[in-house]
Amino acid sequence: MDPRIREHAQVLADAVSLDTGDNLVIKAEPAADDLIVALYELAGDRGAHPVTIRTNRGGRAIRGYLRSADQAGVEFETPGHEQALVESADCHVVIRATENVTEMDDVDSDTTAAYQQAHSPILNERLTDRWTLTQHPAPANAQLAEMSTEAYENFVYDAILKDWDGQREFQANMVEILDDAEEVRIASGETTDVTMSVAGNHAINDTNKHNLPGGEVFTAPVPDAVTGEVLFDKPVYQNGREVLGARLVFEDGDVVEYDAEKNEAVLESILETDPGAKRLGELGIGMNRDIDQFTYNMLFDEKMGDTVHMAVGRAYEATVGEDNEQNQSAQHVDMIVDMSDNSRIEVDGEVVQRDGTFRFEDGFEE
Amino acid sequence: MDPRIREHAQVLADAVSLDTGDNLVIKAEPAADDLIVALYELAGDRGAHPVTIRTNRGGRAIRGYLRSADQAGVEFETPGHEQALVESADCHVVIRATENVTEMDDVDSDTTAAYQQAHSPILNERLTDRWTLTQHPAPANAQLAEMSTEAYENFVYDAILKDWDGQREFQANMVEILDDAEEVRIASGETTDVTMSVAGNHAINDTNKHNLPGGEVFTAPVPDAVTGEVLFDKPVYQNGREVLGARLVFEDGDVVEYDAEKNEAVLESILETDPGAKRLGELGIGMNRDIDQFTYNMLFDEKMGDTVHMAVGRAYEATVGEDNEQNQSAQHVDMIVDMSDNSRIEVDGEVVQRDGTFRFEDGFEE
Repeated sequence: MDPRIREHAQVLADAVSLDTGDNLVIKAEPAADDLIVALYELAGDRGAHPVTIRTNRGGRAIRGYLRSADQAGVEFETPGHEQALVESADCHVVIRATENVTEMDDVDSDTTAAYQQAHSPILNERLTDRWTLTQHPAPANAQLAEMSTEAYENFVYDAILKDWDGQREFQANMVEILDDAEEVRIASGETTDVTMSVAGNHAINDTNKHNLPGGEVFTAPVPDAVTGEVLFDKPVYQNGREVLGARLVFEDGDVVEYDAEKNEAVLESILETDPGAKRLGELGIGMNRDIDQFTYNMLFDEKMGDTVHMAVGRAYEATVGEDNEQNQSAQHVDMIVDMSDNSRIEVDGEVVQRDGTFRFEDGFEE
Repeated sequence: MDPRIREHAQVLADAVSLDTGDNLVIKAEPAADDLIVALYELAGDRGAHPVTIRTNRGGRAIRGYLRSADQAGVEFETPGHEQALVESADCHVVIRATENVTEMDDVDSDTTAAYQQAHSPILNERLTDRWTLTQHPAPANAQLAEMSTEAYENFVYDAILKDWDGQREFQANMVEILDDAEEVRIASGETTDVTMSVAGNHAINDTNKHNLPGGEVFTAPVPDAVTGEVLFDKPVYQNGREVLGARLVFEDGDVVEYDAEKNEAVLESILETDPGAKRLGELGIGMNRDIDQFTYNMLFDEKMGDTVHMAVGRAYEATVGEDNEQNQSAQHVDMIVDMSDNSRIEVDGEVVQRDGTFRFEDGFEE
């Protein structure tokens, strides 16, 4: 086994503080088998109890399930046994890795959305425990990234097995700015100019805890205080489908107009899931400079320097101030804006990033 | 996908009466992936909710877990989250299929036994629900059977996809005899002569319900009423280890002496698990004539015509009469006696099978 797989498992076990007696749930497809084995070794070492279940998106099994449920006109329910498992768990490692990233291509988007909706109580339960989400470098994921499997393995492990203390310090500069902020404006080219309130909400220094790789600073917009227009100029992947050129127009927090250059129907099914899916749940600033190329994988792409991302749907509880509303939704879909050129982030009227360079870095032009 | 895989899934779904709203747990390794996919399709079709978890024997993950737990001196506990999952489930499909049948070869037998012991409340819980156990013809299992993968696929599907109504009728003859029996004597050559009481216990006509393939008639001996000696002349596989020539001597139901030609330590770890592991929990008569060769796989071997098998450990509740004791144990390990030559089954002093031929068949010699 590549020794980096065992190092990866160690980073994940530390991320969820895996300890004696912990009931651990690993959520993964067989394509992640090596990493699952390494996690079982660590669980044994620490006296924790591992159970592995399938993911509910991306595999052949769930595709087959959703297609025949669709055909049979099944109304989805929250499965009580999976809920009982998650309620009795202490920590969760969710691993992305698949044999085919387009496995869900012939599943109806509305069916998938209805299924996710029925599962949202389980997701919410998981978010109250210790959890982390990561990527195992399976060949199909390398293919999506347009890289050889070996090059992709190097890319993934470079992004994950790094100096997280140094990264935390660098990001703390941005946390300080965003934590005190009232209003954030994101402007890029002629196509994006959006202003949102983040007053009273918290900025999180994401490094090696909930996402591996981490490398972003994120907060929640106040749900009814987002106005303007955004063109997400990097592709969004949802259940194996690529939405290109998604454009959202916000008024008083709600998406009042939207379109996309490709797969607008997928964008529609996301936004129409529930009322919260039409509001922002997250604003994130990508700051992991070791992620040096787009790989069409949000877990990495959103952490890149020179980008910001916004998610429609559920807000993370930790980002919401106690007097503020937490946006609720079965969805949480991140979308990226490239900020490397003709772009700026303004906080309370002051420019804090211009063309990808932060004001606390060398080379920032006032 | 081989169309027989979908037929197999159908037989399994029928075996557990899979229906709308059922919480289904599939227990399987990735080597069974095609059959898992086919079961998910059926679950969708019938409006059931599938969750797949790993088996707790045979895979790389559990091997790694047990080895490091052993090294760390972990005391095994019943994992609460897996227990909660199983308690909230309605039905269970357990699939055998592995990438390497000797994966557990370098795991300490005592460690495995202690782990199984900690999991026995979960196993007991599953046995109160609807459940079935089957085999998917993975290449490693074909290798164990000393067959090509394709020949093994044919063997497996011939044994499973058959006329179960006809089989049920044939077996009913033996059920009638055994159900009314007081005492059963099994004699083979110079090495096996054992007498046991089955008075008050029930004979079960096993066809296409708990085992696929089925094809046996089985009951429970009265735990303290087994006397004599048995040489199990077919190999016993336990966690990838082969016990050859296991010999047990019974007095008043207890194993008072035992040895084996190969891997006696494995036999020892089975028998020493708990007091019930030294008593018989099952007597079975193999009657599936479509299983025409030994494949070193108890699920098939015990169903062959011309054999009987006895299991040390737990008795199945359904076989135990209400005034009789049910043998309890964390173990249930079947062992086979070849009855094709110089052998007979006697029930209350009358010969009911001689050299593999039943008295209700043509060719039986009084």
